Amino acid sequence: ALAAPALAQSQPEVTWQLSSGYPKLLDTIYGASETFADTVRELTDGKFDIKVFPAGEIVDTSDGLDAVQEGKIEIASTASNYFWEKDPAFAFGTGVPFGLNQRMMNSWLYEGGGLELLNGFYKKFNIIGFPSGNTGAQMGGWFRREINSLDDLQGLKFRIGGFGGTIIEKIGVQPVDLPPERIYGALENGTIDAAEFVGPYDDDRLGLNRVAKYYYYPGWWEGGVTLMNLVNLDKWNALPKSYQAAIRSASAQANATMIARYDSLNPPTLRQLVQFGTVLRPYSHDIMLACFNAAEETYKELASDNADFKALLDSYMSYRRDAYLWFQLSEYAQDAFLMLQQRAGRL
Amino acid sequence: ALAAPALAQSQPEVTWQLSSGYPKLLDTIYGASETFADTVRELTDGKFDIKVFPAGEIVDTSDGLDAVQEGKIEIASTASNYFWEKDPAFAFGTGVPFGLNQRMMNSWLYEGGGLELLNGFYKKFNIIGFPSGNTGAQMGGWFRREINSLDDLQGLKFRIGGFGGTIIEKIGVQPVDLPPERIYGALENGTIDAAEFVGPYDDDRLGLNRVAKYYYYPGWWEGGVTLMNLVNLDKWNALPKSYQAAIRSASAQANATMIARYDSLNPPTLRQLVQFGTVLRPYSHDIMLACFNAAEETYKELASDNADFKALLDSYMSYRRDAYLWFQLSEYAQDAFLMLQQRAGRL
Repeated sequence: ALAAPALAQSQPEVTWQLSSGYPKLLDTIYGASETFADTVRELTDGKFDIKVFPAGEIVDTSDGLDAVQEGKIEIASTASNYFWEKDPAFAFGTGVPFGLNQRMMNSWLYEGGGLELLNGFYKKFNIIGFPSGNTGAQMGGWFRREINSLDDLQGLKFRIGGFGGTIIEKIGVQPVDLPPERIYGALENGTIDAAEFVGPYDDDRLGLNRVAKYYYYPGWWEGGVTLMNLVNLDKWNALPKSYQAAIRSASAQANATMIARYDSLNPPTLRQLVQFGTVLRPYSHDIMLACFNAAEETYKELASDNADFKALLDSYMSYRRDAYLWFQLSEYAQDAFLMLQQRAGRL
Repeated sequence: ALAAPALAQSQPEVTWQLSSGYPKLLDTIYGASETFADTVRELTDGKFDIKVFPAGEIVDTSDGLDAVQEGKIEIASTASNYFWEKDPAFAFGTGVPFGLNQRMMNSWLYEGGGLELLNGFYKKFNIIGFPSGNTGAQMGGWFRREINSLDDLQGLKFRIGGFGGTIIEKIGVQPVDLPPERIYGALENGTIDAAEFVGPYDDDRLGLNRVAKYYYYPGWWEGGVTLMNLVNLDKWNALPKSYQAAIRSASAQANATMIARYDSLNPPTLRQLVQFGTVLRPYSHDIMLACFNAAEETYKELASDNADFKALLDSYMSYRRDAYLWFQLSEYAQDAFLMLQQRAGRL
């Protein structure tokens, strides 16, 4: 409401600042913010100009939420779950371990009431959020030796981002938090035993394949990671309707573009990694099940004394229940059949 | 180029006509065109007004392409493969049997060069296309008796849309083309033995469960059906850049919204159908394989004397090969694990 008078004309000149939670090195995630800002400019004849900054240049990743809340910047383009220690309900803006995949996440957010519920929560922080990207299911990390059982994981020092760490700790892993640029060195010198980051394309850029041989899947703690444009609510309210529409549409377009880029870039990188010696390994079913149980337990604990977390959990998990009923029919049957043909060299 | 002088101002009043290839009854598909037009209006302060008409009101579904080409309407929002008899290359705007799933299709179109290649082909018809929706993997149809083997399919009169019919004919099925409103009656009075339409939500609206008990999956001929906004190229070229951006973004948003709607609506409908007696059955592996082989044979035949078809096929199929390599890791492992938990009643 503050800036409303200045914006009374229908196409005023507006300049905003967006801070990405990521470095330029991650051209898929950082690049989606550039796509977003470019689209907003195109939609408004260049009148609504959103300047994009990489993490750390004007705001550090960990300060993204505060900076938007206080109006220091207008948008933080980031993972909502980075702020889960402030309130675990933030996790649902990104998705939680053993949660919704990319497509289900979009469905829940756009049509299942998820985004509405989430924005009810974000409002407490003077923020409104728009899904602005998705990495898809991430990989399960790089290990220097094979992990065949739960015993092999005991005391293992594992670099893992955010919320997943609290869950994997319950089965005996020692989670370590490290920024991307320090993962390679820590894995090389043995400060950590294993590390997860994103998927083939991003992991390859960090060179992780050169310091660990075994590449595990799935990254059950990040099965459909959503990125969000977190926008200062006062600034949002002061925008002309057409500029609000531009943010909404350009965010949706960035959301679609990011996953399309990952799905284009990951397969050839995966092929190359395997060619140069990376060995792919699935987590065993008993490891998966122990982690699943630890996750369910964690959710119950958090929901017991946090009404926002509980409301989001109930909505998200009832969506998961129905979605996995539906997806096991046509989607799964068609995919599974074609994967068999792929393995048989018939595609 | 024709209309350019009139549009020299940056936000001129422009009114266009869009004819959907679908009736209002299909509120998911038809509704996505309304979402699209609403978004364009919001983005342009109401100055770019696209009027949406259901199939048949100003243009019949089968005339959509001609009507756009001749400039009678500006946009046909439809399935490109309806026009495959004019040129089979049109099939790739929708996706082909045993082809890319919803997510792969978007990736191929947006980031894999697919849309560029397709628009090179559409240009011959004075058209430019924008993906504007997706139904996801469709179901494999309603049967009055169980289909356990290829023998059970011999001579069976099966209502099936478009391109899939030419393929299923090769394994002995007799394809029948019928508009949606006539399927129920034909199945009831035995004119046809079986029928496919879309998926639980749309099929339920036609009442197909009341005249056939067995509901098969997957709909391998429509594994990631894409809808397109097919736009008259002269009219497109005459638009101000910001209106072109509005069409591009609003189409992307409609594309995301349609699949989100289907994924929200299909699961509860499926649950209800099963509750009222529908029996779910997967096609057997030998039926799937025979159809797969028939499809591959068809593609080879068509590619042998059609350069556009060949160029699109090569691009699309090399994408399929890589995508199914990648998806069998994290995406598939995570989904499969959660489906097992779903079946065990643990979600």
